[in-house]
Amino acid sequence: MIAAIAAANDAQHATSYGDDALTQALHAAFCEVFETPVEVFLTTTGTAANALSISALTPPWGAVLCHREAHIETDECGAPEFFSNGAKLVLIDGPCARVTPDGLHAALRRHQRGVHSVRASVLSLTNATERGTTYSPEQTAALADIAHSGGLSVHLDGARFANALVHQGCTPAELTHRAGVDVLSFGATKNGALNAEAIIVFNSERVGDIARLRKRSGHLVSKHRYLAAQLLAYLNDDLWLTLAARANANAARIAAAAGDWCSHACESNSVFLKPGAAVLDALRAGGVQFYDWGDGEAPEARLVASWCQAETDLAQLENLLYALRAERG
Amino acid sequence: MIAAIAAANDAQHATSYGDDALTQALHAAFCEVFETPVEVFLTTTGTAANALSISALTPPWGAVLCHREAHIETDECGAPEFFSNGAKLVLIDGPCARVTPDGLHAALRRHQRGVHSVRASVLSLTNATERGTTYSPEQTAALADIAHSGGLSVHLDGARFANALVHQGCTPAELTHRAGVDVLSFGATKNGALNAEAIIVFNSERVGDIARLRKRSGHLVSKHRYLAAQLLAYLNDDLWLTLAARANANAARIAAAAGDWCSHACESNSVFLKPGAAVLDALRAGGVQFYDWGDGEAPEARLVASWCQAETDLAQLENLLYALRAERG
Amino acid sequence: MIAAIAAANDAQHATSYGDDALTQALHAAFCEVFETPVEVFLTTTGTAANALSISALTPPWGAVLCHREAHIETDECGAPEFFSNGAKLVLIDGPCARVTPDGLHAALRRHQRGVHSVRASVLSLTNATERGTTYSPEQTAALADIAHSGGLSVHLDGARFANALVHQGCTPAELTHRAGVDVLSFGATKNGALNAEAIIVFNSERVGDIARLRKRSGHLVSKHRYLAAQLLAYLNDDLWLTLAARANANAARIAAAAGDWCSHACESNSVFLKPGAAVLDALRAGGVQFYDWGDGEAPEARLVASWCQAETDLAQLENLLYALRAERG
Amino acid sequence: MIAAIAAANDAQHATSYGDDALTQALHAAFCEVFETPVEVFLTTTGTAANALSISALTPPWGAVLCHREAHIETDECGAPEFFSNGAKLVLIDGPCARVTPDGLHAALRRHQRGVHSVRASVLSLTNATERGTTYSPEQTAALADIAHSGGLSVHLDGARFANALVHQGCTPAELTHRAGVDVLSFGATKNGALNAEAIIVFNSERVGDIARLRKRSGHLVSKHRYLAAQLLAYLNDDLWLTLAARANANAARIAAAAGDWCSHACESNSVFLKPGAAVLDALRAGGVQFYDWGDGEAPEARLVASWCQAETDLAQLENLLYALRAERG
Repeated sequence: MIAAIAAANDAQHATSYGDDALTQALHAAFCEVFETPVEVFLTTTGTAANALSISALTPPWGAVLCHREAHIETDECGAPEFFSNGAKLVLIDGPCARVTPDGLHAALRRHQRGVHSVRASVLSLTNATERGTTYSPEQTAALADIAHSGGLSVHLDGARFANALVHQGCTPAELTHRAGVDVLSFGATKNGALNAEAIIVFNSERVGDIARLRKRSGHLVSKHRYLAAQLLAYLNDDLWLTLAARANANAARIAAAAGDWCSHACESNSVFLKPGAAVLDALRAGGVQFYDWGDGEAPEARLVASWCQAETDLAQLENLLYALRAERG
Repeated sequence: MIAAIAAANDAQHATSYGDDALTQALHAAFCEVFETPVEVFLTTTGTAANALSISALTPPWGAVLCHREAHIETDECGAPEFFSNGAKLVLIDGPCARVTPDGLHAALRRHQRGVHSVRASVLSLTNATERGTTYSPEQTAALADIAHSGGLSVHLDGARFANALVHQGCTPAELTHRAGVDVLSFGATKNGALNAEAIIVFNSERVGDIARLRKRSGHLVSKHRYLAAQLLAYLNDDLWLTLAARANANAARIAAAAGDWCSHACESNSVFLKPGAAVLDALRAGGVQFYDWGDGEAPEARLVASWCQAETDLAQLENLLYALRAERG
Repeated sequence: MIAAIAAANDAQHATSYGDDALTQALHAAFCEVFETPVEVFLTTTGTAANALSISALTPPWGAVLCHREAHIETDECGAPEFFSNGAKLVLIDGPCARVTPDGLHAALRRHQRGVHSVRASVLSLTNATERGTTYSPEQTAALADIAHSGGLSVHLDGARFANALVHQGCTPAELTHRAGVDVLSFGATKNGALNAEAIIVFNSERVGDIARLRKRSGHLVSKHRYLAAQLLAYLNDDLWLTLAARANANAARIAAAAGDWCSHACESNSVFLKPGAAVLDALRAGGVQFYDWGDGEAPEARLVASWCQAETDLAQLENLLYALRAERG
Repeated sequence: MIAAIAAANDAQHATSYGDDALTQALHAAFCEVFETPVEVFLTTTGTAANALSISALTPPWGAVLCHREAHIETDECGAPEFFSNGAKLVLIDGPCARVTPDGLHAALRRHQRGVHSVRASVLSLTNATERGTTYSPEQTAALADIAHSGGLSVHLDGARFANALVHQGCTPAELTHRAGVDVLSFGATKNGALNAEAIIVFNSERVGDIARLRKRSGHLVSKHRYLAAQLLAYLNDDLWLTLAARANANAARIAAAAGDWCSHACESNSVFLKPGAAVLDALRAGGVQFYDWGDGEAPEARLVASWCQAETDLAQLENLLYALRAERG
């Protein structure tokens, strides 16, 4: 990918703000990957991709329905509210960070008070979810149908889209527009890019003026070809899927080693463990890096496997987990 | 109150925008009622009073903690988000629409992720609550202490403040600034005024430039004396407390007639009933007006008693309730 | 008008939030006055009427073109920016506070830089202007045509609409929708009402969800009938035009007495004087109340004539002006 | 610079979100360059750097005073309004895109109407200006003094800061904090970086929570080291000054060749020409790339010289200009 950037650099006098050959090539590549004409808007962060997508789908007096653990709710410091000029995030519960049809129906019912309540405008799903679980095309379509029937648009946070795709074993088209997704935040940074994400618009009738929203929020990068080059390299020869498959496989090895300490099924590149505080201390003492999850009383660890993890590190982690389980399991 | 407005009208050439004698008299009256120097800002709606108060206490990247059933969450079409430029409402559960110390602690714990999460900035309570229950001075102080310790300010939505005061049998000071309330939305419209509410600032160090926020949001009324006149009449001779006591008493009669159909204790002017769908139909057939509450599966009625309810209407409602209970109870 | 409010008060149990008989009657009255079906939204301040109207006509990345001296630019503390979530006011110069076709064309040319510049979205005129001059139906239509051709909507700030109408001697329809006005802020407070203004929508295809914008900004008054009652009384028997004619006539007397001290023609109820600092001091010493206008170096006075000015006060002002002119003219 | 990014890439497992060694080294480098402790916030675009800086210095009801031709007014699609939640840009005229003390004083006088007008909060200068002219340290200080006396903060848009510095022949400290600048948008992209800009805070008491503003607007890049690496390479061995000196020298050659067709003095890397429409056509026919400036009637060209311009291209442009002047001058 660095090589691609260096090559982009040689094209010194390229036109700026996205009117260059690399950006055009990337657009063609995305249309091919998704088997349909799409609009593409590049950004440098996933938060920008999510917030721009959402703000193009909701009025300020709208509600964005998402899972309680969604990244847009917990980790973006209110970016969706900022970009949408104050839309409300309505939180839905559901096991393993997945929105369920029942949860969605209940949330919709609570927002039918006419002018007194905000208008439900967007359903935002995450695939793979914040807990590394995935939605199948069918699950996605079931939720999207409910959303569309209620007049909502469907956004998909695809920060880990490649990982979900590899796990589900389906095509990009099947997991997005054919399942009712209107706009996708196509993540790449978490799967190998330097700083490049893409907003993929499948249904341009539903979105507002993303071009001006992006400029206005400072996300129209002038030397746009450096972003395009990264994503072209990322898509080229299915590199993105290769990297995701490697990360998923690494996560599966960790999950196997952790056994029933796993909080739930491992379906992408993250593994959640609830082995008790003592084991977590032992892991940390053993040099394992993880995020603290959960809410104080029931400590939980989130381990993120990477495509670039060294085999020795991975084997060491497996051994440590097997040893700890033998000792305390 | 109409007479007071007519009198205000005679003062034809009064200075506009709040620099008139009636507004000054009202300021003095509020200082006396609350036994402390306060700042007063008048508005014409409760939504404006709440949203202005909150926006003066939180940055856009702040979180406003409130009960899941709070009016600011359910009935103001996102006004707090609009006025605060996108602050997030964080919802707390708790029985009978009351925030509990445990619920507050848990919500605070969930917002300690540094720059990735919004900053908890305001605790907004409602007294009497949306379910007509009340907080005592002690309950208020316990919550305010937790809030202040966490760096939050405390807002009180007092749309039914008079009703709470009458029920608790304490002074306005005891139920507000002495219990840690920084800013109060002092409601009058629901208790007899035409269109007049007041923001009462107890702790001016915590608030931003409310004067400009009010002007900027179109809530600085030019002929300000008409609002002041209403509120002066409202405070005069404790009229506000007399009206609230009458409404509370009427609600108590309804609650007594409804018996164990009441969802919970009646502590102000609203009564919540869960008598089953058939009884609700019978009530409606009997001409009783109420709001549908609850979430579909368990229908619930919200009856609001008024200070100006005719005795015949009230007696008729009592009789209907007694008859229905005799028949089906 | 007070009597009308008192009458509205007797209708104690009217439905709230605008679903009452008086509001319906007012809607019919406005349709008749403007000879076309209109949508009507009441507010309590002119700033709210203007800002809501504008925010319903522009996206956040839009530009609102108006005269440099427009009230929305100089006197509303940024309300249009607040309600529109950050649209930009683009200022146009022109003599006597009137926008000219040339000024409008030039402003449009400056905003054609694609995604890098905001999009010109609204032309906001004021009639009568902030300097008391007026636009004729033909002048309005010429500007509206340019605006519509460029894809802009046309808003009219009618804080002094009645005064303009009386001066122009035309019908309400001729000075608004027949001349291309899409949305009108219909002012009443400056011409006799207590606190009531109306947004009149002629072209509902151009506007967003005003109902939710109004609720969200705290401008949906619950006891809506008190506003409707004022405006019904205001329209009844052409009271509004009678009051405006009286105010205009009073202004004309002041202007006649001031002679060539007038900055420009007096076409409604305000008179602008540039008699030099000494005369202004003398006027003030003589008890005359006026606003300081102009920019320091060339002091200017703005006198606003009222329909309720006492004859003795008016005659005294005339005499003072004649005397000062005899002395110094 | 590409090499620096590749090196940063080798540090695969660096901590994210700015907590890495390169970012720390860059912070130290900036403190040394400016000879004072500074806070540094990196972004990927100049629009983001400007808008974040400004929004950290003004409340929503504030006014940002800047030149009529400022980039923040003309080319950022309302980004300052978006980030600041609706602050107003107040435009100042002045020759050669420079704000003058008189213009600044006049703008301040126009915003002293209390709650009815927005509050003047920020003076935003650009150095080098949008017309390639520069402010000296003394000129900057004179304006900053007026601003500070009026309670405003001072922002400097330094998209071409290196070019201004080279022209003025002074130190970075002299042209910023010693002259009263509170916050600087330090540009690098226009002078050789791929996509890296820095907000430099000199006076942290004046700014709000930039860290949260940045996260919330999607400008906190996770793989932060790639930005830091670019800027470290940019500062290293005064590369930034070398590049700027080269660009300035190239512009000076163009200006010399254009002679009195130049609209004004060339003080950095841009040259503005007003040779009449025919000559502009001839230049364009000769393959010269430039921006159309001016307002229709008096066509003007903006040529931007680059540090990486090929000598042959430059000589060709010089020859073309000399030839055209000999022919028509």
